[in-house]
Amino acid sequence: MQFQISREFIEKIEALVESKNNKELLVQLEDMHHADIAEILEELDLNDATYVIKLLESDKTAEVLLELDDEDREKILDNLSAKEIAGEIEEMDTDDAADIVGELSPEIKELVIANIEDEQHADDIVDLLRYDENSAGGLMAKELVKVNENWSVTGCMSEMRDQAENVTRVHSIYVVDNRNKLKGRLSLKDLITAPSTSQISDVYIDKVDYVTVDTKGEEVARIMQKYDLEAIPVVNEMGKLVGRITVDDILDFIKDEAEKDYQMAAGISEDVEADSSIWQLTRARLPWLVLALLGGFISVNVLETFDGAMEKHGALFFFVPLIAAMAGNVGVQSSAIVLQGLANGSLRGSLINRLFKEVLLSLFNGFVLAVLLVLGGVFLLNLDFDFGLTVAISLISVIVTASLIGTFVPIILDRQGIDPAMATGPFITTSNDICGILIYFSIAKIILGF
Amino acid sequence: MQFQISREFIEKIEALVESKNNKELLVQLEDMHHADIAEILEELDLNDATYVIKLLESDKTAEVLLELDDEDREKILDNLSAKEIAGEIEEMDTDDAADIVGELSPEIKELVIANIEDEQHADDIVDLLRYDENSAGGLMAKELVKVNENWSVTGCMSEMRDQAENVTRVHSIYVVDNRNKLKGRLSLKDLITAPSTSQISDVYIDKVDYVTVDTKGEEVARIMQKYDLEAIPVVNEMGKLVGRITVDDILDFIKDEAEKDYQMAAGISEDVEADSSIWQLTRARLPWLVLALLGGFISVNVLETFDGAMEKHGALFFFVPLIAAMAGNVGVQSSAIVLQGLANGSLRGSLINRLFKEVLLSLFNGFVLAVLLVLGGVFLLNLDFDFGLTVAISLISVIVTASLIGTFVPIILDRQGIDPAMATGPFITTSNDICGILIYFSIAKIILGF
Repeated sequence: MQFQISREFIEKIEALVESKNNKELLVQLEDMHHADIAEILEELDLNDATYVIKLLESDKTAEVLLELDDEDREKILDNLSAKEIAGEIEEMDTDDAADIVGELSPEIKELVIANIEDEQHADDIVDLLRYDENSAGGLMAKELVKVNENWSVTGCMSEMRDQAENVTRVHSIYVVDNRNKLKGRLSLKDLITAPSTSQISDVYIDKVDYVTVDTKGEEVARIMQKYDLEAIPVVNEMGKLVGRITVDDILDFIKDEAEKDYQMAAGISEDVEADSSIWQLTRARLPWLVLALLGGFISVNVLETFDGAMEKHGALFFFVPLIAAMAGNVGVQSSAIVLQGLANGSLRGSLINRLFKEVLLSLFNGFVLAVLLVLGGVFLLNLDFDFGLTVAISLISVIVTASLIGTFVPIILDRQGIDPAMATGPFITTSNDICGILIYFSIAKIILGF
Repeated sequence: MQFQISREFIEKIEALVESKNNKELLVQLEDMHHADIAEILEELDLNDATYVIKLLESDKTAEVLLELDDEDREKILDNLSAKEIAGEIEEMDTDDAADIVGELSPEIKELVIANIEDEQHADDIVDLLRYDENSAGGLMAKELVKVNENWSVTGCMSEMRDQAENVTRVHSIYVVDNRNKLKGRLSLKDLITAPSTSQISDVYIDKVDYVTVDTKGEEVARIMQKYDLEAIPVVNEMGKLVGRITVDDILDFIKDEAEKDYQMAAGISEDVEADSSIWQLTRARLPWLVLALLGGFISVNVLETFDGAMEKHGALFFFVPLIAAMAGNVGVQSSAIVLQGLANGSLRGSLINRLFKEVLLSLFNGFVLAVLLVLGGVFLLNLDFDFGLTVAISLISVIVTASLIGTFVPIILDRQGIDPAMATGPFITTSNDICGILIYFSIAKIILGF
């Protein structure tokens, strides 16, 4: 049943665009889901894609545009007039419309807004543009179904039918008082099962979760997930109902956040994809590599100060990558667990307890690894026992230190109001490399003496 | 408005449990959201939590149990009789009920199922247990609202009210024929706005997305996200409607998958949290550290074969952590981008193009970093130019190799049907460390000769 894009189909569409066979193009694309059309457009070149967008009706293309990658959409919009863009915007829900308008350059933005025919729609969009993108105000749509607590159920049904025209999905009907203050909610199911003679105020549920326009996106996502909500109303500072956020927006938000965290942990600082340009990929990747290079310079310096060991205990240098790798891995593990704990709230209890637990855990892991190291070193690598023991003791110390750095750097950053995700990946690996090597040689120097 | 758990409140609940003040406990907890009660229970000790579960009504506690961590729930269920568990199961939707029953030990499972009074409910649960957890069958619930295409709209409304009783949220009404084959869908909105004299077959939408019981969870998630669906019907091999999957289940699924990928990349192989036990954390972390240790042994061996360099070019060893770190970071970056590309389908185009792009990108990045290395080496570390150049040339080669390994190992694993997420984190870092060091010294040997 699902649509599968094929090379042949793309070529067919390209040929139809080439020959300007609009009739056949419409036959091919008319019944297709907008998400599928978007997939096709991403395979076409810019001119062909623009041609298709101009050909199709804007109630369809508005949805298609929303499905496209930011980059692809931007390029296509550059090829459309302000009037054409306004036509697309007109068909979008206010939240999506505001996102698209917000991406336009200031001059085009003004022109586009001036070209929107539905004044209420334009007002709503301008209103939404005020809010920070990552706040409930920036995520909400103006479209919702609301009823006055003083209405009757019958009167409400007909009023509601009109309102529902503009709303793709009715999750909840919100109940407000005469001054538009949010009082409660009602499901469509409640409404059709209620006796038609009753008043709304008799049947509505006065417990309703809501957020205010300033609530952060992360907090909205947390609340909607915790309470399994499909939509949440948004009120302004005065408690008046101004919009609602639906679960599909939050789904996108959660996915983006997870991707961002994942990329940050891998040392990629911008949202790039496998098909981004080399320039974009470089911009996202190079800064972290420069950081690692600087860290590398420091470790060169650290090793130089211990070059006295080279003559008598040169083998110490052979273990440097092993020590650095263990420090890096342990640090990344610890920081990943702490970061997820910070994100989902499972990081409870006092810092002292956490310190105690982390030390215990890393001592235990370190001990197991140290035993393996001594066994492996003596039997596989023919080291003498004293030397193996030196490396093993260093290894335990390095593991404990790395796990403490991995655990507490994100916690400290978080308490300082800095995004703790900064502390994963290259940053934590680099600092643990340096600390690890320093500890390793210091301990070796004490034990072996050089 | 949001509930904030406080130390004082927990202590109050503990005191009420201690004094067996059931009346006051009920007053405190009765109106609370089940997700909040779950949060409180996680702070209580096992006996207190069990006491609260036994005290509250099962329509509430069923929801509370579903919110708890797997571990906490398991412990509480151990303290309940089969009859008590069956009472909870009775109140759950079939999909959640099957998940919980599936977690029980075989003997308890049978006893619990035998104690479920509603035979239809028990049948549904047993039926759901057959399916793989990660398939549409394992994710779906049996509860849904369906109507026969031959019914009238009026007849349908009353029938539907009965059905809707059992369904928390009506996303879509599914239309089936006399043999229960899925024909299409209808929204509640469509139904109330349709003329009451019409037949269902006149008003339903015959285009409906669906999945079969065997469809993989990832594919269900992809379809629901792509087409922005809030629920999707599930049919069996004969096209008969057997269940539906709702967006909130998919939200949990997506979050779990993202967490799993993130943990895998950080070298954590089981689903652990910051508050998991030391034993669990060790089981999740230690295997990866052992892998890194083995990698470390190999790098010791590699370095030993180049120990001839120590006398004349000992400084080469100072750059080992720098080279290893660059190889590791580049590899992780490349593999992360490829993995996300594999997951979201943005990895299009031929392998040759990808190879070409990756080489170009890494050559460019490598060149920039090599220039920085030479400048830094000569001016900051007082290296002589020839030596700096040797390290720089090695660095470029190492970066190109690491990015190719990071790019193609996940692609190859994916084509072999192995989870490519295996190839991130410790695995890619360790193999790149070894390759990097090998390349570095080989090039140095050719240029400097030792």
